[in-house]
Amino acid sequence: MDSITLLGLCAAGLTTSAFLPQMFKTWKTKSAKDVSYLMLITFMSGLLLWLIYGIYLKSWPIILANGITLFFNLIILWLKIKYR
Amino acid sequence: MDSITLLGLCAAGLTTSAFLPQMFKTWKTKSAKDVSYLMLITFMSGLLLWLIYGIYLKSWPIILANGITLFFNLIILWLKIKYR
Repeated sequence: MDSITLLGLCAAGLTTSAFLPQMFKTWKTKSAKDVSYLMLITFMSGLLLWLIYGIYLKSWPIILANGITLFFNLIILWLKIKYR
Repeated sequence: MDSITLLGLCAAGLTTSAFLPQMFKTWKTKSAKDVSYLMLITFMSGLLLWLIYGIYLKSWPIILANGITLFFNLIILWLKIKYR
């Protein structure tokens, strides 16, 4: 693996895993009222387009990062709806 | 501009502008206690690496998206510290 792909994978790992503490915080406090619905919806639409962009570019960091981040944000949205 | 770059720019536009409603919500409610510190810090570290990755790939969508998103998240972090 070249160093640029490794850098991309590190970037992907960080921006993806960032949503884990948010997920756990929401699950633990049973509150996400300070998290914006519009942010979640817009962000997830963008992640879907990034996913397609990554597939075109054949960039694994972009594909993995956005696929998994999309999944985590779906869970945060679901928790926000559940605990509203 | 080719259609793949356009797709990337749309993706960038969405994932970047997603943080605008979060910024305004935090500013308006003066509360971001449900937003995780660990999420913000991890996310911003990742955005910085994406920025470097984008510069290597010479991908304008990646550079713009991550640069501006980093700026918005800095403001959200500052608001969270200010209103804690």
